[in-house]
Amino acid sequence: MPIRRYEFGRADEATHPDSMRAALAEFVATFIFVFAGEGSILALDKIYKERGVTSSASELALVALAHAFALFSAISASINISGGHLNPAVTFGALVGGRISVVRAFFYWVAQLLGSIVASLLLRLVTVGRRPVGFHVAPGVSEVHGLIMEIILTFGLVYVVYATVIDPKRGNIGTIGPLAIGLIVGANTLVGGPFDGAAMNPARAFGPALVGWRWKNHWIFWLGPFIGGALAGLIYEYMVIPAEPPHHAAHQPLAPEDY
Amino acid sequence: MPIRRYEFGRADEATHPDSMRAALAEFVATFIFVFAGEGSILALDKIYKERGVTSSASELALVALAHAFALFSAISASINISGGHLNPAVTFGALVGGRISVVRAFFYWVAQLLGSIVASLLLRLVTVGRRPVGFHVAPGVSEVHGLIMEIILTFGLVYVVYATVIDPKRGNIGTIGPLAIGLIVGANTLVGGPFDGAAMNPARAFGPALVGWRWKNHWIFWLGPFIGGALAGLIYEYMVIPAEPPHHAAHQPLAPEDY
Amino acid sequence: MPIRRYEFGRADEATHPDSMRAALAEFVATFIFVFAGEGSILALDKIYKERGVTSSASELALVALAHAFALFSAISASINISGGHLNPAVTFGALVGGRISVVRAFFYWVAQLLGSIVASLLLRLVTVGRRPVGFHVAPGVSEVHGLIMEIILTFGLVYVVYATVIDPKRGNIGTIGPLAIGLIVGANTLVGGPFDGAAMNPARAFGPALVGWRWKNHWIFWLGPFIGGALAGLIYEYMVIPAEPPHHAAHQPLAPEDY
Amino acid sequence: MPIRRYEFGRADEATHPDSMRAALAEFVATFIFVFAGEGSILALDKIYKERGVTSSASELALVALAHAFALFSAISASINISGGHLNPAVTFGALVGGRISVVRAFFYWVAQLLGSIVASLLLRLVTVGRRPVGFHVAPGVSEVHGLIMEIILTFGLVYVVYATVIDPKRGNIGTIGPLAIGLIVGANTLVGGPFDGAAMNPARAFGPALVGWRWKNHWIFWLGPFIGGALAGLIYEYMVIPAEPPHHAAHQPLAPEDY
Repeated sequence: MPIRRYEFGRADEATHPDSMRAALAEFVATFIFVFAGEGSILALDKIYKERGVTSSASELALVALAHAFALFSAISASINISGGHLNPAVTFGALVGGRISVVRAFFYWVAQLLGSIVASLLLRLVTVGRRPVGFHVAPGVSEVHGLIMEIILTFGLVYVVYATVIDPKRGNIGTIGPLAIGLIVGANTLVGGPFDGAAMNPARAFGPALVGWRWKNHWIFWLGPFIGGALAGLIYEYMVIPAEPPHHAAHQPLAPEDY
Repeated sequence: MPIRRYEFGRADEATHPDSMRAALAEFVATFIFVFAGEGSILALDKIYKERGVTSSASELALVALAHAFALFSAISASINISGGHLNPAVTFGALVGGRISVVRAFFYWVAQLLGSIVASLLLRLVTVGRRPVGFHVAPGVSEVHGLIMEIILTFGLVYVVYATVIDPKRGNIGTIGPLAIGLIVGANTLVGGPFDGAAMNPARAFGPALVGWRWKNHWIFWLGPFIGGALAGLIYEYMVIPAEPPHHAAHQPLAPEDY
Repeated sequence: MPIRRYEFGRADEATHPDSMRAALAEFVATFIFVFAGEGSILALDKIYKERGVTSSASELALVALAHAFALFSAISASINISGGHLNPAVTFGALVGGRISVVRAFFYWVAQLLGSIVASLLLRLVTVGRRPVGFHVAPGVSEVHGLIMEIILTFGLVYVVYATVIDPKRGNIGTIGPLAIGLIVGANTLVGGPFDGAAMNPARAFGPALVGWRWKNHWIFWLGPFIGGALAGLIYEYMVIPAEPPHHAAHQPLAPEDY
Repeated sequence: MPIRRYEFGRADEATHPDSMRAALAEFVATFIFVFAGEGSILALDKIYKERGVTSSASELALVALAHAFALFSAISASINISGGHLNPAVTFGALVGGRISVVRAFFYWVAQLLGSIVASLLLRLVTVGRRPVGFHVAPGVSEVHGLIMEIILTFGLVYVVYATVIDPKRGNIGTIGPLAIGLIVGANTLVGGPFDGAAMNPARAFGPALVGWRWKNHWIFWLGPFIGGALAGLIYEYMVIPAEPPHHAAHQPLAPEDY
């Protein structure tokens, strides 16, 4: 569905209406997701007044549900237009597996980051000036531990994306693909939350970091998801889908019904 | 599906059995949604006896789940008859995008408000006289902040409605459209709840306000959702669906399979 | 799907293999649902050791999720065999609307009650003798209030069942019908829980009442759901589905694709 | 879908690419599930610092959601390749019902156990050395009670698997089969959690037991699920699907559209 025009040359692709619509869809959907995800953390800040309260099981569950529900809905709202990435690591996994061109990936990345920045700015406004929190490793957790956590969690996420949304043989499981993606992010947040926040998504991390101006450990939330996403893309594309030769966007146009 | 008879003139449309059935479906489904949504807040009031306890993460999650689950179910139960709006702001977004006629929109609004009022009255009865709470901005939040919050949250909601239920090219994502709508309301409640309650729906706000007779900040929960819903309708209709000309109900009948 | 053989006379229907399979499916699925629903309450009893602790938001949410998730799964596991009623009030609503014969309804009722009794007996065993709790009205709530609550909550439930599972024109919304039913029970539990427990299902109430031998207010949980279910059946069948004449099982056989 | 090549002899089946892909899919998906499931318990350990805090409703709900969401997503991500078992008891139920060959079952079991072990090892690494907890019966619960609990809970799980994923007549309910399976595990965890942890899956129990070196009551989590899974397989295969003769993998090849 999402990527229908690989027969266009790359320069053309960048300005083609379909590419613009897809970038717009990524922008809006990432905005919706980040507004709810980061916003749920600021909502807890509002409830508990003083900052720095110890996190609890119910707070962690609340944050995980906000991410899971919003991501599912935002993917559903963009999957027919852009494929519903909303995440530079997902786009990178699709790029590594040859499912998207470099030009389009670049467009997606810009749109995703802009969506996250605008969401963070508006959050700062409507929460009466609260500084977005973003992501960092918890006390007692090293950067290396956080990096490995991000790699593993994002691997699981992008593997699910590949199997339920990208795989041309996904069949009717594709109908619930967006839900599977939203809920694996919810489950993974319940694991990684107390250790490094469980971003699994550089755009989700970048907007709040920029608007809240918090850059501690920030590189982890780019490198980890990109490694995890690439691993998932390579394993799924070259080991799990062997019946058809691997796709290379540049060489081999996808038919609409292939995606 | 929902709106099949644009070939009827408007006067006829108002009394046509299909319009009456659609209004009935909106009435019942909005009743089910508001009864559970507002009722979950009164249930917390019952659990914690004394009023005015500080809200907590688990209370906020409970209210968000009640709204998300009930809205999903109520939309599922009305989508084939009326399109499953249950929300004057959704109807307004559909009107602005040319997907529904003014006459039918008016019918929907009346049915939605009546459903909410009857739900609030029955809630007051079965909860042994508890006064419905409705919506207002929290201490430390201005009316302007609340208004912008409602605009943003409703924008996200109506964008998801457009992409997953109204877009004629939504394909099999339509199967899970009602769930996507229910869960974005759940996620957005987790953000906006502590700030302004996160109504995103004038009917949801009006019934409890009337029965509980609480009108503080009430205008916010009309103006905000209508602005947000209109923005989403315009952006989706004119920028995201460009392959076909925008629909205008009055001029261009929709075929059943178009909706 | 479920009810395919109205051409059989009633005596034959009772002993026909399809009827036996449907009753077996109702028995097992009701067992699975009641074991999880009632079991979640006994699990809280295990966690909090001493009885009589004040209920809290997180306990109520836990009980609602257990009912919602288990009911959804159990309906999914029986819908193709028996229609996935698992609830005498749903069966009564289908009977009133002419969607099931009296003989088959009787079979379903017996199977549902047996499933609930066996679940309650096994729960008492595996929870090391804990007495099932079942349902009663809370302090400060009269029997009449509880009755009206059950009527309203069950009305919403059976209305959703009709619209998403029974309506022959439900289309692809039927795919998520079991989820809509499970989640409206979850949402309604979040409303009615602190007032009367929110049974919405005589079988759900009867097994624990029998095995725990607690009959206080028990009649409410039969009369309320039956009235609510009948109301929903009549309204949906005679007002929302007008395009085709109402079905009467005895006179007018349903084709498989009609259900 | 999953098992397409019963015409191959068994020796050939073991080395056939399809078998290798299916085993790989089981390995990765079980890894994703166990990482989130066991990880959610270690995340609580991180939040509450000191070990041995009394479990609470919100902690139990969090663990149940992590298992439910991750299992749903991981099944969705493997159902088209391997059938999405992720559980030796599910594979055993399918074997008893004649839906999978002994050779393939053996492959699945090895892959499932390896996935769980690798997940547990990586969890120990990223959680800065926390020892996986695994499963044991709670104080006041005997091994026999725990065994019966596992039998009942796994019976419900495998019955749902049979009805929504394995039954060739499952129809479009198959689309939400993975969700039904995930959520019955969530609901059953809310029942069995405080009594014996509610494993319902020997692979889920084995990896953490090995890596955390905790073998107390471990046999319960093998014997219970295998008995429960076999019971569900036999009842569903021989009593609920009578319209077609029982399948025996060795004698009667399945057509792709049969599964």
